[in-house]
Amino acid sequence: MRKVYIAGVGMHPFGKYMEKHLKELGAHAFLEALADSGLSPRQIEIAYIGNSLAGFLTGQEAVRGQTIMREIGLQEIPIINVENACASGSTAFYGAWMSVASGLFDCALALGVEKLYVDDTPRTLHALAADSDVELEGSMGFMFAGNYAMKIKRHMYKYGTTREQIAKVVVKSHDNSQHNPYAQYRNPLTVEEVLNSKMICDPLTLFMTAPIGDGAAAAILVSEGLAKKLPKVPILVAATVLKSGFVPNPEDEDAPDTVERTAKVAYEVAGLGPQDIDVAEVHDAMAPAEITAYESLGFCVKGGGGRMVDEGRTEIGGDIPVNTSGGLIARGHPVGATGLGQISEIVWQLRGEAGKRQVEGAKVGLIQNGGGNIGGEPAAMAVHILSR
Amino acid sequence: MRKVYIAGVGMHPFGKYMEKHLKELGAHAFLEALADSGLSPRQIEIAYIGNSLAGFLTGQEAVRGQTIMREIGLQEIPIINVENACASGSTAFYGAWMSVASGLFDCALALGVEKLYVDDTPRTLHALAADSDVELEGSMGFMFAGNYAMKIKRHMYKYGTTREQIAKVVVKSHDNSQHNPYAQYRNPLTVEEVLNSKMICDPLTLFMTAPIGDGAAAAILVSEGLAKKLPKVPILVAATVLKSGFVPNPEDEDAPDTVERTAKVAYEVAGLGPQDIDVAEVHDAMAPAEITAYESLGFCVKGGGGRMVDEGRTEIGGDIPVNTSGGLIARGHPVGATGLGQISEIVWQLRGEAGKRQVEGAKVGLIQNGGGNIGGEPAAMAVHILSR
Repeated sequence: MRKVYIAGVGMHPFGKYMEKHLKELGAHAFLEALADSGLSPRQIEIAYIGNSLAGFLTGQEAVRGQTIMREIGLQEIPIINVENACASGSTAFYGAWMSVASGLFDCALALGVEKLYVDDTPRTLHALAADSDVELEGSMGFMFAGNYAMKIKRHMYKYGTTREQIAKVVVKSHDNSQHNPYAQYRNPLTVEEVLNSKMICDPLTLFMTAPIGDGAAAAILVSEGLAKKLPKVPILVAATVLKSGFVPNPEDEDAPDTVERTAKVAYEVAGLGPQDIDVAEVHDAMAPAEITAYESLGFCVKGGGGRMVDEGRTEIGGDIPVNTSGGLIARGHPVGATGLGQISEIVWQLRGEAGKRQVEGAKVGLIQNGGGNIGGEPAAMAVHILSR
Repeated sequence: MRKVYIAGVGMHPFGKYMEKHLKELGAHAFLEALADSGLSPRQIEIAYIGNSLAGFLTGQEAVRGQTIMREIGLQEIPIINVENACASGSTAFYGAWMSVASGLFDCALALGVEKLYVDDTPRTLHALAADSDVELEGSMGFMFAGNYAMKIKRHMYKYGTTREQIAKVVVKSHDNSQHNPYAQYRNPLTVEEVLNSKMICDPLTLFMTAPIGDGAAAAILVSEGLAKKLPKVPILVAATVLKSGFVPNPEDEDAPDTVERTAKVAYEVAGLGPQDIDVAEVHDAMAPAEITAYESLGFCVKGGGGRMVDEGRTEIGGDIPVNTSGGLIARGHPVGATGLGQISEIVWQLRGEAGKRQVEGAKVGLIQNGGGNIGGEPAAMAVHILSR
């Protein structure tokens, strides 16, 4: 396997863009990544396009990537449409990485794009229900909010995690997103405002849940030889691991969850451990997932996630800043774009380009991006480790 | 890049199965491929699931593969949902091949599955319209029948290709499919019956078009080391090439089309030429596409496809039998399953397991599988060359 580097990243800001379609969003992110990389469009040899819900929401059920690539003006190269719910962007990244690592291609595009704002919110929520098995979890209403709520309720009971700690995660994300021009929400919030927002599914209030949104993000991956010819500091893909959710023994609640099992492999591949991570983006589709991610990723002991928040360890300036972008909660969560949005943030951090969000001296970053719900565990889970 | 072998293939018969869903169809094909391979389920290390239209037609917009893999009992491994319209199965195959060729995995599953028969045919046809750009070709009704009809009309004018020659392709496919237990239609037809069936889009009659259908097909790909331990003759993936459609200069009608450009690369990779191909499965979504495929694949000169049919050269017993399975026209065309159905047929042919459809002494086979329509060219095009 060859070493693979990220030559460029780019995003279309996440938010509500009623006048834009998949093509405009995708082309914007691609062109920004292309300019960032210093490559010419004709150097892209293969493209993986991640999207989850465009069939339901835009009518473009098939060949989504091809419609975007025609808009961009890039045809003839292999275009592979991939889907893995909220981890679709990471799955595109995984494919692009394998394409270069294998030696088959020197330059691969990973593009994630999603258009969630359509005519009405119920239609979007109906589409999101298909992120689970529609005949099982989906049809019975066992959707994300309920799933996350049940898990954190147990965590609160077992470890003493509090509503205030969950709210503080949201406050931190909004503090960070103020300085992120790509973020959907850039307004600071107080703990009281988070706790007093509309109750969605106890203990989760509205501001503890990621918003729906539109957006796109892209990364261009290259071989070592090509990386050396490009202007920006190349960022090494030290590990990229994809797994599917699985509950080996539902009665053993202390068994490693899907995040922990995926991270374990990523650390092994990279030859690194949690103590080496300088900055991380984790999948806080609902705020408590950030607290449990700290534990599953090894940033603290089991049950120690709430205390980590209280101690401010994951704030910018803390010992391991998490979700400097604002995370899914504040930067936004256009499903198929999210993973590559997370990757873009870590690339900017490792290059020292994150402005007021910059983590000083960051050399190694981690991304955790999950998708879907099968039997209460994520249908897909990706952990990437990047280094400069 | 490592050599990659096909260890096993399997199919769920193509047809109309109102009582079966994606899971049952997919699990059936997987289990048949698994039994064929002699592998145990736990040896599968990564899975690519090809499907195009389940969002529209079954409601399973996201994580389709994960729902099928849970049914099979295979979780935790990476599961990647891929979509490329009618070439989705080939795209899954391409991903599985790259996974093993790269050295990352020793055993990869490619599964293609599609459920097209639902409550009403108009809903299925509406879904199929999304195989093009829904804002351009799709919304303007420039769909498959019209596209194929316009192309063959020009071919008839330029080269003298006749309706009878197109009908003879259908007659050949139905002759072959009589002996294929996986085929949707196993009834012989006469030239007159084909010509007198309902007119769809001049010159295409109903029997010249592939039916809608349900089905699944799978292939398990392994490294050379693993292949040597398995009972069946391993089939080498001599080349697998994926491209996207592109019209470099619309005014130059003699420029190589997407099939020709893709085949050219496949021949180069395999170190083989058209004269080396003993048997082929080509993408006859509409019967005239088989005639033009002969030309684009180099089996005859430009414009010589119709004469090839008259001379019986592509019948079983001819010098290059094509669509021994019955092709899309008679074996059926459950979109995402088709590519792997074609691959299954060629594997059986190269192993000498094709029964009354057997091409004597076949050592090298070719598969051509296209998908979607962007600007009148296929959105995706795959050519695979297999050898024993």
